[in-house]
Amino acid sequence: MKRGYLADYFVGVGTKRLSGTEVDPAISNGHEFQGTRILQAFLGPPSTRRSIPCTYMWLTDEEAPVRLDATATWYDSRANQPHRRPEPRLLYTAEAEPVVYQASEGDTLLVCLGRDARLTVLLCRAGSDIEQQLLWLFDLEPPTAQFSQRDIRETDQGALSFAARQILEAIEVEVPVADDHWLEALLKAFGPKFPGTAAFSSFARDLCPEVDPKGEPDSTLMAWLELEETLFFTLERHIIDERLRTGFVAASRTDVHGFIAFSLSVQNRRKSRAGYSLEHHLASIFEAHGLAFERGGRTEGNKKPDFLFPGAAAYRDDRFPDDGLTLLGAKSTCKDRWRQVLSEGARVRRKHLVTLEPGISRNQTDEMRAADLQLVVPAPIQTSYLSDQRAWLFSLQDFLALVRRRAA
Amino acid sequence: MKRGYLADYFVGVGTKRLSGTEVDPAISNGHEFQGTRILQAFLGPPSTRRSIPCTYMWLTDEEAPVRLDATATWYDSRANQPHRRPEPRLLYTAEAEPVVYQASEGDTLLVCLGRDARLTVLLCRAGSDIEQQLLWLFDLEPPTAQFSQRDIRETDQGALSFAARQILEAIEVEVPVADDHWLEALLKAFGPKFPGTAAFSSFARDLCPEVDPKGEPDSTLMAWLELEETLFFTLERHIIDERLRTGFVAASRTDVHGFIAFSLSVQNRRKSRAGYSLEHHLASIFEAHGLAFERGGRTEGNKKPDFLFPGAAAYRDDRFPDDGLTLLGAKSTCKDRWRQVLSEGARVRRKHLVTLEPGISRNQTDEMRAADLQLVVPAPIQTSYLSDQRAWLFSLQDFLALVRRRAA
Repeated sequence: MKRGYLADYFVGVGTKRLSGTEVDPAISNGHEFQGTRILQAFLGPPSTRRSIPCTYMWLTDEEAPVRLDATATWYDSRANQPHRRPEPRLLYTAEAEPVVYQASEGDTLLVCLGRDARLTVLLCRAGSDIEQQLLWLFDLEPPTAQFSQRDIRETDQGALSFAARQILEAIEVEVPVADDHWLEALLKAFGPKFPGTAAFSSFARDLCPEVDPKGEPDSTLMAWLELEETLFFTLERHIIDERLRTGFVAASRTDVHGFIAFSLSVQNRRKSRAGYSLEHHLASIFEAHGLAFERGGRTEGNKKPDFLFPGAAAYRDDRFPDDGLTLLGAKSTCKDRWRQVLSEGARVRRKHLVTLEPGISRNQTDEMRAADLQLVVPAPIQTSYLSDQRAWLFSLQDFLALVRRRAA
Repeated sequence: MKRGYLADYFVGVGTKRLSGTEVDPAISNGHEFQGTRILQAFLGPPSTRRSIPCTYMWLTDEEAPVRLDATATWYDSRANQPHRRPEPRLLYTAEAEPVVYQASEGDTLLVCLGRDARLTVLLCRAGSDIEQQLLWLFDLEPPTAQFSQRDIRETDQGALSFAARQILEAIEVEVPVADDHWLEALLKAFGPKFPGTAAFSSFARDLCPEVDPKGEPDSTLMAWLELEETLFFTLERHIIDERLRTGFVAASRTDVHGFIAFSLSVQNRRKSRAGYSLEHHLASIFEAHGLAFERGGRTEGNKKPDFLFPGAAAYRDDRFPDDGLTLLGAKSTCKDRWRQVLSEGARVRRKHLVTLEPGISRNQTDEMRAADLQLVVPAPIQTSYLSDQRAWLFSLQDFLALVRRRAA
């Protein structure tokens, strides 16, 4: 499976902390991102005025990205002063104001130049998850008032990791992982449609023999997840391919409604798949370790934590000691939904939550600690966290050791 | 504009409060929804065992719906007892367990029979927004342990309102509002692409002359929103139609990536449109009333409430009295994001939030009141709220009167 490299998508990227002059129309209407002169390294010297296709995105941890496809202008503000050296500037178009003005002084700007010569302007809050994730993805230092940049062509980095691909997905860059080498086996097992999520996850595990769920639970979980992801996108591509060949035009009438319904079904299947996949594979690892646990067992108020160790019967049994109970939520991405876990079982003081989300911000992990929630992140994804966060994070291995101790 | 009727989509609908026997596998594996015998009125007497196409959905106020298309079984449990009258039962398929088991004892079930003879099984939490919305949409009494139902064919109800269409959208029933009567004007103004959201909203207002923003602000806002919605879907249908005619197959290769990108762009444009539209039209109404206000003005910590009256300069001026300031958030749908407004301006004790969301649950509105947030709902949408909630709600008219008093 070739997973692609960052350099397949980007040439270079720069960042800075935004000033009011750049994004506050009450201060300036200059539409300029300052200090971007050094983008010359990627954009070349400006002619008088060059228009470059540019995607603008405002990214938050709570809502879907606000995106606009327009242009940016790369120009030499000293074009009329032939005796002085060029002074290149990057301007955003007036059309992009509704996106750019979402940002405030102190927020973070990233300017990315794609391999396809398109620019992407990313704006996000300082201290947000998405900021930490993007800085990690592009290997950038925390932004300052000075625009600083990195040449991605020069870097000798490994293939894009699971964590990296998740972040790229958030900025709507899709890294293809489908692999038709698996298609025959998929069609033989399920035909051209998806089975239930449990059956699909189990199929992925069966095809992934060189793993060690007992000795290497963290890397085993990742291997299962990644193979299932490849299988999912392989079968999805086949299904979409077939549907597109049929087309959405019959007797010269187009089926707009059919298109919307089909595309919604594709998006929704993608959304719900990841969560189920994580839970199924975790259950398989807990079984391999011979742990007693229950999925979806009820606690008080009909709450249903994803995993309860040893189970709901013990939870409801007053004679069973509180400190023998473990409650684990599982969320493939957290966003601000991690708080839901806090109310899922009053008897368990410290809750655990396992996630695949890379680089959750220090703000969020501080709040988790304050709420006595221990985050569990598979070891390969922990590299996207800051070093002081990593000291606190549990790996899956750590979590398993805890549950074993409590069961002993 | 023909907006459609509920009876265009549904024949009948029933509801009950779920018991553990129905949804808790620890109690029963019977897969039966109890008391559904009376569905005979719509489904007819069961043969021994009839399989009916059925969509299962688990609906929450926080996450995207979990949906599964499968079947349900309608059968006569006394088929072998020819001397007794038939005892019809509705069973869900084992395949639907991952959706049905999301529900717990005490949650709410709705069984809808569509005009297309498909069943839709909807499951949601008791006391949730979506429960209140669905009960209002289908005009059902609050569910009890007994299955009760309503014949939609018999009702003489008006065309589907804006509120009703929003709720149908939540259960993925799309009510077409496009109207090609507007297409020529749209193409003349913008060509086959969308302009900025402000320009589009302004275009809609210009085409909507018989309104009275000063005297009838609530109905004017709704008229603008509804016409813009029609214009949006008319132009969208044209754009999709053109794209589908081109197709996603070239030289016998399909463009799966192009399909995904195009369908994402359609979904994202839908998502971001509604919010902008509401803000633009509100601003136009505030202007018609000659009120001083500012959109996106900064308060402390770089927070940007949607509307600040009279403006950010007054907010930052310590000599300006606190009780002369009004802060208004605008969210076309609230979900649990209404809390964001609470931190957008410490000087304004009671915040206001205007929304188009129908039938927000009493749980949520109680929490809003406790947090000193006054909800503003255009009068035509207030019918979807319970009577005690309506006594508390502000209309847009009420809100305008308050701001005028403060400015006087």
